[in-house]
Amino acid sequence: MGLSEILSIISGDLVRVEEQIDKSIQSPVPLVYEISKYLLAGGGKRIRPAILLLCSGSLGLTDGWKKIASAAAIELIHTASLLHDDVVDDAALRRGKESSNVVWGNKPTVLVGDFLLSKALGLIQSCGNLELIKAVTDASAKLAEGQVLEVMSSASMIETTEDVCFGIIENKTASLIESSARVGALLANNDNDKINAVGSYGLNLGIAFQLVDDALDYSSTQQEFGKQVGQDLVEGKMTLPLFYSIQGATKTEKDKVNKILGKESFDEQELSFIFEIVSKYKGADKTKDSAKIYADKAKESLTYLPTNEFNKSLDMLADFVVERTN
Amino acid sequence: MGLSEILSIISGDLVRVEEQIDKSIQSPVPLVYEISKYLLAGGGKRIRPAILLLCSGSLGLTDGWKKIASAAAIELIHTASLLHDDVVDDAALRRGKESSNVVWGNKPTVLVGDFLLSKALGLIQSCGNLELIKAVTDASAKLAEGQVLEVMSSASMIETTEDVCFGIIENKTASLIESSARVGALLANNDNDKINAVGSYGLNLGIAFQLVDDALDYSSTQQEFGKQVGQDLVEGKMTLPLFYSIQGATKTEKDKVNKILGKESFDEQELSFIFEIVSKYKGADKTKDSAKIYADKAKESLTYLPTNEFNKSLDMLADFVVERTN
Repeated sequence: MGLSEILSIISGDLVRVEEQIDKSIQSPVPLVYEISKYLLAGGGKRIRPAILLLCSGSLGLTDGWKKIASAAAIELIHTASLLHDDVVDDAALRRGKESSNVVWGNKPTVLVGDFLLSKALGLIQSCGNLELIKAVTDASAKLAEGQVLEVMSSASMIETTEDVCFGIIENKTASLIESSARVGALLANNDNDKINAVGSYGLNLGIAFQLVDDALDYSSTQQEFGKQVGQDLVEGKMTLPLFYSIQGATKTEKDKVNKILGKESFDEQELSFIFEIVSKYKGADKTKDSAKIYADKAKESLTYLPTNEFNKSLDMLADFVVERTN
Repeated sequence: MGLSEILSIISGDLVRVEEQIDKSIQSPVPLVYEISKYLLAGGGKRIRPAILLLCSGSLGLTDGWKKIASAAAIELIHTASLLHDDVVDDAALRRGKESSNVVWGNKPTVLVGDFLLSKALGLIQSCGNLELIKAVTDASAKLAEGQVLEVMSSASMIETTEDVCFGIIENKTASLIESSARVGALLANNDNDKINAVGSYGLNLGIAFQLVDDALDYSSTQQEFGKQVGQDLVEGKMTLPLFYSIQGATKTEKDKVNKILGKESFDEQELSFIFEIVSKYKGADKTKDSAKIYADKAKESLTYLPTNEFNKSLDMLADFVVERTN
């Protein structure tokens, strides 16, 4: 089932979220709006707003402005992190087009990221619920820590352990998705058990989501993925597809891989060799298998929530996250 | 009178602010703490926390944890903006030592800025007052807009008007100082007239503070200033010392200045010529005169507040801001 079909139950709300986003990025400085709009209008799955709205709905909150505002705020925080990520990674492509740092340079891109983060937290503030603000600022600090962890680990790819890979995934991606789910629940309900079940759904779905992203970076094509494939390797980031493949490789292969990964940068031949190893030892498939386990954990959490159409969509979303090809 | 003497009335609280800052920047990722600590331990006048504490005290709030936490949060936001500023400007020096981007590179510097901003807003959240959060997120968004405005204006120095210069000053510097004052008042008092008087003090003092900074960039020495002098010109930023000097220059001088400023970068001889013009037409002095007017406006606002020791310190602080040499 396609994403828009899974999300049809909240399609009206997702339109309102887009309207709120556009309202929030207005600025007396034209370039600020232009850069914000460029990335936000360039697509993106809006998975975080969708999770917030579905979680909120699953616990009985089906209307009201606060969930629209919160969903918009979370997407703005995510967008801010993409802008900073692209600067940090010198990325060339994002969502199928030139990334903002290429079009406008690093300077305004960093600053517009700051603007979006501030606007997002102002928007969350306007919901008048301190718990929401805590959930979001905690996630946002973790996100930055996860990105620093990733930059640090890229200084020594071969020493990056499975634990570090998962630490990066949890901080960089899963924490904000968990917070999306939790904010949705907080808006709807005061029952701690239910809020925690929803949080666990978000955390596990977030891990699955990033694992699939890491797998696709080795197994997709640029056209399908909307960004360059093989980028993690080029940027010196150890991710699980490569990690799992190295575990399975022969001693000779391992030595050769380690020798390559120890270098500052890789030539075409070296890149090809690494890709062959990942292909030979099915690192992308193994990573997707791992993603499936986390998606199943996410689905398990849903059994603690009321049975309704929103819950059903959350269940389908977990399948979608694992099966997606971009 | 020296700054520490002016602030002696809040010296105990300023120590507590430092302790809170150190607590807030703790992170399971060691590099995050290290980078945060490097800049925060490197000095800085702590003018924003001081203003918050003094404003709070002037309206009767002389103890409690919330003003310590808010003051720490504002300093963290300021620090985050310095980190991003140094990346944006490719700065080499900050507070008399190598800037963070030089020591660790741009990547972790950008991300640690994000971390500090998130931590700051989390800390403000923990004060449990939604109005504080609004004051701070509004200022933080304006700060980013002001920085973008500055980057944009540097694309065409000679077209930068006095209004644009003031717009940058207000957004980039004065808005956060205004918010420091306002937060201090909000914590102490619900009287709107008093809160607005305090806000006006902060805004005008903030403008004076940045005007003096811009003047010192043309008139100080590197040793005294703690950062490279003449940087605004090197970075293509039009500030008021130069703007005022051009107004006074002869037609021949103006033509030569405009020809130089229209270039992508300047050689030693061109830089010297510009400095001579600023010196000849006393641009730095005129900017300080303008700063004095704003400092006087700030002092005028204090007459609407109760007369006490805190109020007296705020008054002396306004003089200090204009007379400072670094």
